[in-house]
Amino acid sequence: MTRETALEALREYRDQINEVDRRLVTLLNERTRIVEDIGRVKRSARLPIYEPKREDEVFANVTGHNGGPLTADAVRRIFERIIDEMRTIQRVRMEQSDGDPSC
Amino acid sequence: MTRETALEALREYRDQINEVDRRLVTLLNERTRIVEDIGRVKRSARLPIYEPKREDEVFANVTGHNGGPLTADAVRRIFERIIDEMRTIQRVRMEQSDGDPSC
Repeated sequence: MTRETALEALREYRDQINEVDRRLVTLLNERTRIVEDIGRVKRSARLPIYEPKREDEVFANVTGHNGGPLTADAVRRIFERIIDEMRTIQRVRMEQSDGDPSC
Repeated sequence: MTRETALEALREYRDQINEVDRRLVTLLNERTRIVEDIGRVKRSARLPIYEPKREDEVFANVTGHNGGPLTADAVRRIFERIIDEMRTIQRVRMEQSDGDPSC
């Protein structure tokens, strides 16, 4: 492969990654909005807020639907970060009420 | 909102989150495959492997297309984790050749 052919291929691959990343950002924000809805429902109905079992369900769902090449551990670590960021966003709202929404 | 209405709403929201999460896993694996393609092209053309500037482009792309409610910092931290996991997956291949693909 010549240097020029390779550089052109890299440009195309990076355009593809940028497109995938924009779709990831859209989905991550969609997920955040649903987590916010869950928080509102729980506060409104005064339901127990923290549900560690639900976190296990999230990990089971994502690792169960992982076809690779990412490993199950890699997928789990990415979702730990995602869940953690969504908790951080909710914290301010929660401090003004009576709990902390789970995922 | 009654307890029963709330529990039913939570079930629906969680189904939605599970669906979003499965789409996230699919996209994350799609991204990983492209990163692997980039690694192959770089090794084949003996191009410089590590390109920190490209990482900045990734962050600029995702934060530039972030409509919220996630903050730019939250999006950045999630993508730091994603990039890190993809580097880990590539490491084994790279140790057998002459470099380390960037994202």
